[in-house]
Amino acid sequence: MNDMDGRRFRVHSDEVTKATHEALERRGVSVRDIAEIVYEMQVPYNDGLTMKHCIESVESVLKKREVQHALLVGIEMDELAEKGQLSRPLQQIVDSDEGLFGVDEMLGLGAVLTYGSIAVTTFGHLDKNKVGIINRLDTKTGEGVHTFLDDLVASVTACASSRIAHRTRDLEEEGKTYEDVSPEEVAPESHIDGAET
Amino acid sequence: MNDMDGRRFRVHSDEVTKATHEALERRGVSVRDIAEIVYEMQVPYNDGLTMKHCIESVESVLKKREVQHALLVGIEMDELAEKGQLSRPLQQIVDSDEGLFGVDEMLGLGAVLTYGSIAVTTFGHLDKNKVGIINRLDTKTGEGVHTFLDDLVASVTACASSRIAHRTRDLEEEGKTYEDVSPEEVAPESHIDGAET
Amino acid sequence: MNDMDGRRFRVHSDEVTKATHEALERRGVSVRDIAEIVYEMQVPYNDGLTMKHCIESVESVLKKREVQHALLVGIEMDELAEKGQLSRPLQQIVDSDEGLFGVDEMLGLGAVLTYGSIAVTTFGHLDKNKVGIINRLDTKTGEGVHTFLDDLVASVTACASSRIAHRTRDLEEEGKTYEDVSPEEVAPESHIDGAET
Amino acid sequence: MNDMDGRRFRVHSDEVTKATHEALERRGVSVRDIAEIVYEMQVPYNDGLTMKHCIESVESVLKKREVQHALLVGIEMDELAEKGQLSRPLQQIVDSDEGLFGVDEMLGLGAVLTYGSIAVTTFGHLDKNKVGIINRLDTKTGEGVHTFLDDLVASVTACASSRIAHRTRDLEEEGKTYEDVSPEEVAPESHIDGAET
Repeated sequence: MNDMDGRRFRVHSDEVTKATHEALERRGVSVRDIAEIVYEMQVPYNDGLTMKHCIESVESVLKKREVQHALLVGIEMDELAEKGQLSRPLQQIVDSDEGLFGVDEMLGLGAVLTYGSIAVTTFGHLDKNKVGIINRLDTKTGEGVHTFLDDLVASVTACASSRIAHRTRDLEEEGKTYEDVSPEEVAPESHIDGAET
Repeated sequence: MNDMDGRRFRVHSDEVTKATHEALERRGVSVRDIAEIVYEMQVPYNDGLTMKHCIESVESVLKKREVQHALLVGIEMDELAEKGQLSRPLQQIVDSDEGLFGVDEMLGLGAVLTYGSIAVTTFGHLDKNKVGIINRLDTKTGEGVHTFLDDLVASVTACASSRIAHRTRDLEEEGKTYEDVSPEEVAPESHIDGAET
Repeated sequence: MNDMDGRRFRVHSDEVTKATHEALERRGVSVRDIAEIVYEMQVPYNDGLTMKHCIESVESVLKKREVQHALLVGIEMDELAEKGQLSRPLQQIVDSDEGLFGVDEMLGLGAVLTYGSIAVTTFGHLDKNKVGIINRLDTKTGEGVHTFLDDLVASVTACASSRIAHRTRDLEEEGKTYEDVSPEEVAPESHIDGAET
Repeated sequence: MNDMDGRRFRVHSDEVTKATHEALERRGVSVRDIAEIVYEMQVPYNDGLTMKHCIESVESVLKKREVQHALLVGIEMDELAEKGQLSRPLQQIVDSDEGLFGVDEMLGLGAVLTYGSIAVTTFGHLDKNKVGIINRLDTKTGEGVHTFLDDLVASVTACASSRIAHRTRDLEEEGKTYEDVSPEEVAPESHIDGAET
């Protein structure tokens, strides 16, 4: 890392955000796919929670630099592996979704930890007991390489779910539930510069 | 962890915030002490950065649940060790600030990671090359036990410093510097419920 | 942390190991309890795996400094909370096993990460879908505080399970299975000084 | 991650180890370069420590799967960036060694954490105050991309240094120093199957 180099050629955060969304879409993962898992996990604990709240939460997570960079690197690795463009033996390791690889989980873990250690157990649970889109990614081995993507989608899901759990507590302290808040209010930082970190 | 137990007896976040500030004060650490290190680290890269911006950044970090809980546990351990109330051999391990203990760094690391992996190197640097208040805590061994506190203060400092680095980038993209923003704007999430996570 | 202070009063590692085993026993957790979960998790993938191999693996994990220190701190916190000796509001937070506490998971995570990021998902899974002794600890709320212990036992279980998964790979490469190795060989480092890290 | 897929096509660990050494060599980093930093950091605390002990420690670290995989992925990313083969905007981000990237530090952190949280501060220190080969990698921007490699070399250095610190403690407890042990004894696990994890 070098704080000063390359400042001139810096990529604008809007471009990174756009690239992240495009990459997910290209790999067959929609914000709604992720929000559905979040909804299932959180609705038992949250009166009035709607899919719209969950979609807003996923959108907020996808605005974080740490999350965006992990997704871009992971998806790049998967796509390079699909095209057979990695060098040996990395090509085979990624290709075969080798159980002891570990780099895929580490990238997912880094993103998860920005939501606190309490998001870690949700991440582990989702990564192990793959549900919804995470399962579809993990099993469509014939059609492509998703060695990184399943872990990263589990990570984004855990982040968005954890965000709601924190927000629930805040609402409780105000004597409110999700019925009292519009989806936009779930992610107030998305309307303010510099608060997303 | 249990999501449901004890909900009735839950402590309000205002009380936790208050306890965190009181604990730091009781242990001789002021927000200003921490902000001074942040200022020194960040001013070379930031035109117009003032102590007020740094104080706001530290205050924002100290509002995070993850940070508050780590501080409360760490300071409790230090204080119990000072009073000789830990059981053997933990009492001796904490007492002697045993170099291979590791739990103190782990608590600090957990808080740091909520600001992304880029805060980790700042944390490591501060923890190793102790400056300012961190050094004073580390060396006043005759007067008390600060086994956990020096690592936790290094952690809060790294968080607040990293917050400013992220904010700097946002400002750059808007064509602004810190000269253009009031300290309150540095921490906009502190005025909005539920956005602190 | 301070590398030099207190070297004179250092606690011998044998004493720390002994204290760790005593603490687990005092809290009603046996090595066998943990090994049973490890066995259940690993036997589907491992021909010839026996409880003895799993017990050896748990014993090896319990020799690691990082694991021992995390257990000693976590159990101390639980026991102090039971006796009502923590200060407010930490007493209530630990007492109620507050879902957003996070320090308990962080301690467990630190130990888990010494076995690589692949142990993290097992930890998350066990912490969420509590089985065996982990479930008993989590639910016996009437009889004591186990806010830290359930996470730490999940952590030790994940470590021991991950150790076996790594060892399985090594055996495969030699054309062997667990049927070919005695339990002692599973943990060769336990017979060698300084290799446990 | 998928435990079962691709088992047939699995790469042997010897091939991964060989590839790791070749990749480091190709990027201009020798085991000796790393061992020199380890020696400088550890010799003040260790009577009788020699370069040979340090070389053995680095070699041991480079046998760990977690470390090998992180190195292979990071070096692949650097080399692909050099050849301009990453997609936009990742190409620019890696090219410019963007200060807020974070994935490079995260990969380094994952490896470091397998040696416990105490290795984290050494990693942060080395990554920030680049010395020796780490500095040479960080500054030869004209000649190539080392966005990942400088962090990963800092990580391997921190691991090897931390290994020695742990070993020092073991020796102390036996009433010995490094003068009493041959370099081979520093890394006894390297002669035993399955103990390296």
